[in-house]
Amino acid sequence: MQQRWADRDEVDVYLGVGANEGDREAAIRTAIAALAVTPGIAVVRVSRLRETEPVGGPPQGRYLNGAVHLRTALAPHALLELCKALERAAGRRFDGVRNGPRPLDLDLLLYGDRELDTRDLTLPHPRLAEREFVLAPLRDLGVDVAVIPRPVAGPRVFEEPDAFAAWCDARRRGGCELGLVPTMGALHDGHASLMRRARAECERVAVTIFVNPLQFGAHEDLDRYPRTFAADLELCRQAGVDAVFAPRVDAMYPPGFCSRVAVGREAETMEGADRPGHFAGVATVVARLWSLARPDRSYYGRKDAQQVAVLRRLQRDLGLSGALVECGIVREPDGLAMSSRNRYLAPADRRAATVLHRSLRAARDAFAGGQHDRDALLAVARAVLDAEPRGRLDYLELRDEGDLAPLPAGRVPRGRMLCAVRFGEPPTRLLDNLSLRGADEEEPW
Amino acid sequence: MQQRWADRDEVDVYLGVGANEGDREAAIRTAIAALAVTPGIAVVRVSRLRETEPVGGPPQGRYLNGAVHLRTALAPHALLELCKALERAAGRRFDGVRNGPRPLDLDLLLYGDRELDTRDLTLPHPRLAEREFVLAPLRDLGVDVAVIPRPVAGPRVFEEPDAFAAWCDARRRGGCELGLVPTMGALHDGHASLMRRARAECERVAVTIFVNPLQFGAHEDLDRYPRTFAADLELCRQAGVDAVFAPRVDAMYPPGFCSRVAVGREAETMEGADRPGHFAGVATVVARLWSLARPDRSYYGRKDAQQVAVLRRLQRDLGLSGALVECGIVREPDGLAMSSRNRYLAPADRRAATVLHRSLRAARDAFAGGQHDRDALLAVARAVLDAEPRGRLDYLELRDEGDLAPLPAGRVPRGRMLCAVRFGEPPTRLLDNLSLRGADEEEPW
Repeated sequence: MQQRWADRDEVDVYLGVGANEGDREAAIRTAIAALAVTPGIAVVRVSRLRETEPVGGPPQGRYLNGAVHLRTALAPHALLELCKALERAAGRRFDGVRNGPRPLDLDLLLYGDRELDTRDLTLPHPRLAEREFVLAPLRDLGVDVAVIPRPVAGPRVFEEPDAFAAWCDARRRGGCELGLVPTMGALHDGHASLMRRARAECERVAVTIFVNPLQFGAHEDLDRYPRTFAADLELCRQAGVDAVFAPRVDAMYPPGFCSRVAVGREAETMEGADRPGHFAGVATVVARLWSLARPDRSYYGRKDAQQVAVLRRLQRDLGLSGALVECGIVREPDGLAMSSRNRYLAPADRRAATVLHRSLRAARDAFAGGQHDRDALLAVARAVLDAEPRGRLDYLELRDEGDLAPLPAGRVPRGRMLCAVRFGEPPTRLLDNLSLRGADEEEPW
Repeated sequence: MQQRWADRDEVDVYLGVGANEGDREAAIRTAIAALAVTPGIAVVRVSRLRETEPVGGPPQGRYLNGAVHLRTALAPHALLELCKALERAAGRRFDGVRNGPRPLDLDLLLYGDRELDTRDLTLPHPRLAEREFVLAPLRDLGVDVAVIPRPVAGPRVFEEPDAFAAWCDARRRGGCELGLVPTMGALHDGHASLMRRARAECERVAVTIFVNPLQFGAHEDLDRYPRTFAADLELCRQAGVDAVFAPRVDAMYPPGFCSRVAVGREAETMEGADRPGHFAGVATVVARLWSLARPDRSYYGRKDAQQVAVLRRLQRDLGLSGALVECGIVREPDGLAMSSRNRYLAPADRRAATVLHRSLRAARDAFAGGQHDRDALLAVARAVLDAEPRGRLDYLELRDEGDLAPLPAGRVPRGRMLCAVRFGEPPTRLLDNLSLRGADEEEPW
């Protein structure tokens, strides 16, 4: 909750000042003079100005750099707006060129000991510690630069739901759009593609890593489901993820937990028939994660197409999250859809497992060749699956491309073929699906 | 989503200026001069200053009042902070006295055509239209005061879930704590007490009015449930409610809606046994309302004690809302708990219906008199109920005061007695409950 103005005490604020165009010193001195007469701001002290080389950006002249110590009760964003007004008054244009030349550059470096992470302002300044041209003037002003909090390298990791919810809430209140990538860990490049897309589309990205017991049946692979937390965290770091939420089971489901979220039709067949209770478990954990994070967008892989249909239904019915983004399947070079469960496969099964993709592709090719009859297309895929003795078919279905509703027999104008096949003992179930109109399939990020 | 500064155009802003202490004109002229040299602000024109009588507050001197026309791209809250700084510089103390005397008073009246409703700033100024001492200087400055949007009298009414969610979101982002009072309409003073408490504890209050078909059984009173929307709206207006959300059924549950939220243990007995599916219907609609409104606090009456236990479980398990506030029962003068269903009762049944409260009070009196045996206390209440032939008992239970878990036979240190009784044909079911430690029962607001 923001603080009421009248409650706020004056704080010590440090501002970076710089210029590398026109009369640099005059621009800096004029801005400082303007700050000194601004209501609510007292200029305490100004550092020595130094000549420094530009960092990044196009070829440009040397900078004159310094820092100013202010006392003020004006909020950080009010100061930011005043700085922008001074930059504009000095003739600066906001033309989108990063690190380009500028007649005046003002940066909020420190606002008391306040830490802030909003869309347009992060405090302490995130690149402060890397910049000697900022640190030197701060030392002039008597700031102990060694005690300034450094930005954390890699994602912030949360175990406690409340702390994660508070982190998300603070970013949302700071105007950031938040992307959420829920996972069960054992991350692979399929997950990474979700993170890359979230990174491109959202100002802050959170990944959740939680092997959700509610979505595993009594005889399923909960205990042997792969846990690779250190590698997962490194993958998140490389994908530029801001926060990882990895709760313990008893934090997600405290003693006495007994609520369930369930959807109807979308959850009833295919995976829902093979794995009773699975989608209620998925819907319950996702509802809980959405409630905690309240993302603007959340990202799911199309490999679990029915899960996406279930969550889309949940999102429509209960309105729990922002947009749900369905992302293309990432495949191994031989076509096998990436899955955390692929690592269970014995080498011979791993080779045989390409049969899922091969069978779907055979149906897609037949469709492209003019075969549009539902049962004939299913027979084409089935023939490929039957030719692989190591796989035991759970289901093969041709469904509506959007909501995965069953299609009537006869001619189909479009559709998505889905299958589940078991390999080995204990069985490893693999899923795959493909649009009959393969060209419509979105490329993964 | 807030607008990035660099995208924002300069707007015409009108500021009210006033003073009734010290050298009033000097204070006003000094503040205007300070605004004129503030980065990012241009003073366009200043109105004539007028002598006016103070409005409200303690006895005090006459005001000098005027208005200033500014051009600026500074955000409304940045301007607000600058105004506070100027007031403070003029010697004003923020001592909490409303409408007290002041050496300088600056009010943001208009910020372009922007409408804004945040915790500390509402635009246009909410009392602008009532104040001739503000309107006259605005006319000096050429503002057509007739076209300024007037604050709506009474609550804003929403039918569309998205519009209601957007209203709630904007208030939350503006720093307001939001209180939610979910109802099925047919409002009475029990509901009003929830609204009064929400009004006292939250900066904005929203009431929802929705007769939720999901929580009615096939043979229950959905069709004849009382609908009194005009009177409900008037009650909300008198309680100072800011928004009323009254959706149509097909907006809450569009075609294809099939998701359900359900809780376990708390929903299983008493009302849950008598009304199968009732609490899943309640949990589903409340989850949907919480998701839309995302309140900081939501308010429920203790008359429906089991419903409160169910929602508390839902809130704990899924973490969908902020705090859940349970409010004391409001009773008619003869002790009958207020309920929308009381209006169904024939006069003789209405008189007989006091038996619920009388039976619970008899048990409480016995407890106060030293009878602490569970079954003996139940027998005391049962005897009173049995003496009233017009009522047919559905259940009478002595439960844990907090989570309503069953209590073992024998001595009970505390507890809550709950009952449901039917009257007439078609039957009207009435509920009531009372703590054995009556003095602990919180008074309704």
